[in-house]
Amino acid sequence: MSELPTRLEVEDLQQNLRMVQEGLVEQRAPAELRGELDRLHAADVAYILEALPLEERLVVWDLVKAEREGEILLELSEAVRESLIATMEPKELVAATGTLDADEIADLAPDLPAEVVQDVIRSLPQEERLLLRAALSYDEGTVGALMEFDQVTVREDVTLEAATRYLRALDELPAHTDQLFVVDRGGKLRGTLPLARLIVSDLEREVASVMVPESVKLHPEDRAEDAAQAFERYDLVSAPVVDLISGALIGRLTVDAVLDHVRAKSAESQLAEAGLSKAEDVFAPVWNSFRNRWAWLAINLVTAFIASRVIGAFEGSIEKLVALAALMPIVAGIGGNSGKQTITMIVRALALGQIQASYWRKLVGKELGLATLNGVLWGSLLGIAAYLLYDNVALGGVMALAMLLNMLLAAGMGVAIPWLRSKFGRDPAVGSSVLITACTDSGGFFIFLGLATLFLL
Amino acid sequence: MSELPTRLEVEDLQQNLRMVQEGLVEQRAPAELRGELDRLHAADVAYILEALPLEERLVVWDLVKAEREGEILLELSEAVRESLIATMEPKELVAATGTLDADEIADLAPDLPAEVVQDVIRSLPQEERLLLRAALSYDEGTVGALMEFDQVTVREDVTLEAATRYLRALDELPAHTDQLFVVDRGGKLRGTLPLARLIVSDLEREVASVMVPESVKLHPEDRAEDAAQAFERYDLVSAPVVDLISGALIGRLTVDAVLDHVRAKSAESQLAEAGLSKAEDVFAPVWNSFRNRWAWLAINLVTAFIASRVIGAFEGSIEKLVALAALMPIVAGIGGNSGKQTITMIVRALALGQIQASYWRKLVGKELGLATLNGVLWGSLLGIAAYLLYDNVALGGVMALAMLLNMLLAAGMGVAIPWLRSKFGRDPAVGSSVLITACTDSGGFFIFLGLATLFLL
Repeated sequence: MSELPTRLEVEDLQQNLRMVQEGLVEQRAPAELRGELDRLHAADVAYILEALPLEERLVVWDLVKAEREGEILLELSEAVRESLIATMEPKELVAATGTLDADEIADLAPDLPAEVVQDVIRSLPQEERLLLRAALSYDEGTVGALMEFDQVTVREDVTLEAATRYLRALDELPAHTDQLFVVDRGGKLRGTLPLARLIVSDLEREVASVMVPESVKLHPEDRAEDAAQAFERYDLVSAPVVDLISGALIGRLTVDAVLDHVRAKSAESQLAEAGLSKAEDVFAPVWNSFRNRWAWLAINLVTAFIASRVIGAFEGSIEKLVALAALMPIVAGIGGNSGKQTITMIVRALALGQIQASYWRKLVGKELGLATLNGVLWGSLLGIAAYLLYDNVALGGVMALAMLLNMLLAAGMGVAIPWLRSKFGRDPAVGSSVLITACTDSGGFFIFLGLATLFLL
Repeated sequence: MSELPTRLEVEDLQQNLRMVQEGLVEQRAPAELRGELDRLHAADVAYILEALPLEERLVVWDLVKAEREGEILLELSEAVRESLIATMEPKELVAATGTLDADEIADLAPDLPAEVVQDVIRSLPQEERLLLRAALSYDEGTVGALMEFDQVTVREDVTLEAATRYLRALDELPAHTDQLFVVDRGGKLRGTLPLARLIVSDLEREVASVMVPESVKLHPEDRAEDAAQAFERYDLVSAPVVDLISGALIGRLTVDAVLDHVRAKSAESQLAEAGLSKAEDVFAPVWNSFRNRWAWLAINLVTAFIASRVIGAFEGSIEKLVALAALMPIVAGIGGNSGKQTITMIVRALALGQIQASYWRKLVGKELGLATLNGVLWGSLLGIAAYLLYDNVALGGVMALAMLLNMLLAAGMGVAIPWLRSKFGRDPAVGSSVLITACTDSGGFFIFLGLATLFLL
């Protein structure tokens, strides 16, 4: 699929974009713009499409050659891909997949209308059809969903000379072929033969004597995240994917798919942190963005409403000492912030597998210790500030104590929430920041107003 | 440097860790444990060290062979690396770097005591010393800081046969050698020769006729982030790094360094979002964690204090209508949440280069439109809730209006903050979430309490 990039320098990307934009503004001849687009790597065309508002985007998309549509759709973000697919006829879509491999079609499939996917499956030759069905069968987030099927295999009893002759006959090796996979007659993986070894070894030797018999093996059911960590840890370019039971070679995972996965996951968690369910096309209509954002706002309104009712329960106290209203958001805020620090640390360490069951108690102790240190320090500071502002020693004391207690609550919940979630097999990262803020807001108001009611009124 | 990983399955990692932990608990013979550690890949030993509390970690570190210390230090996170370096003698540290390449030593250098770095430089042969000085001279976050110097070069006027003979004489190719770099007598890059092409081409042909004359070229001063995007976009395994002016080949960037960089950046931004200046060793003493976290808490206390003074200015109004105290955090909260959504979208699109200068007005319009939609919807809902709770129509109206206005403020600031920061050459991501929350907290309290004072009292 992938031709070699034609551009020389990193800066050219912005230049391509400006070139196309100027072409659109000056209404240059379509043939000329089409020629410029043809010159560009599929990923560069995708970059331009992403950076253009919807109307201009569709003009450029119309200029793209039909046989390049498939590879360009693959390079686009989901949101922008959807905006283009929505304008295409079923026939065009089936044609666009014609240039793609089975694993690439599987990547596009979730964004295609169901009947198009059926048509595509019918249009494929038998062997490709089986591969596509296999690729479609793996869950998102597994190695199976990321792997490809274009690995090169050799037998262990041939000479390197014969293997090299075989490779020459192939004319071109699939991208990211840094090693050949050595299989037996039954298709079982026996080892791998790195190209770098093949090149430096004596051609009369047999594959079996040069190959690496033991190397990282993945299974299609493995979590993509674990595979990504293995690629990172062992600096892999490709890894064989084998059947868990038979040990048969099914496909391979390559570092470009891993890199894309890592980027996508990183973007996802950043977006999720801010309450966006997925990446938006920045030029999407208001309505699309609304659907992406409303759920989070609703959840936050519910937790804010609960916190508001906690305050409501103490309205009598606030009426008597209105300073409480001004001070209470500080107590809630510091708890939320320190809780988020704790939970972020713990969630990250959990994801990296750094926390063994036996160390939870140690962690709770540490975070509570830290919260005590922070609570005494910032609590005293703000306690003194409250005393100076309102000339009320008891109010200062309540402020200091409430800040300390809310930070202890935050530390406790910051460890407990991810611990409980991981214990019950849930992803400890999901919604961690809403949960902790809900605890420290309502908790902070309750602690501060409760202490004030007890000691001040 | 990197041997092939010796483990077979992804699950083995946890097993290694348990094996070492049990060995420590049962006080097994050091020689036995040492043997087990020797079997493991450097990255796997690093994994175990990261997952052990400080005391156990030092016991295991003592069991590691001196000649492996360098490569293992390289694989560790900064926090854990520091905890080990702190216990090592200068002599040991100099010895540990003895097994590393110049670019690897440069990666460790920031964590080493200054006099150790001087000793290391003195201990190197002339050529390596020059490379190390060069590697140390590039700023963090540039291609220069990530590149390595072990590329294989060939001349364009030799035959593939001669090139292959030359490679055999090397015995082993550096990791991630997917292509050779073709240079002229002056060391200027002329093109690249992918191994996959070398293998399938006729050996009598000349390098010049088989090589790829134009491909992605990086400069040491390029931003690492741009290079990472190029690797992702063009699915690269390695890329040449050339001098900007002379075009001479200086080194190469490989995908493993890019993957590490992407991961590190992703972790950094996740941690920064929660106000942690860097990744913590989960088992670090309380004091270390405190230094990592205090600055953010201090900043947040300042903004919370300002918001508190805004409320303080309206204490008279709250005294008259105490319901205001219970409702005001809802107005501030929804503004903060919707503002964070906007700013996250914009910062991300900016980082991907998707926003051209001419489209800012369009974006502001879209975000204000979305804020109006959200504001009317959630504002009406909460306005009705406020009316029902307090049986006060005017209060409901003020609540609804304040929510709408604060969401408009959030949308405006959510676009304006990153726009201004990028205009003045600052990183739009840094501190974006503190800034927006500061605006919407103080702004929300001011809008709500101000409207209430105007219309209700």
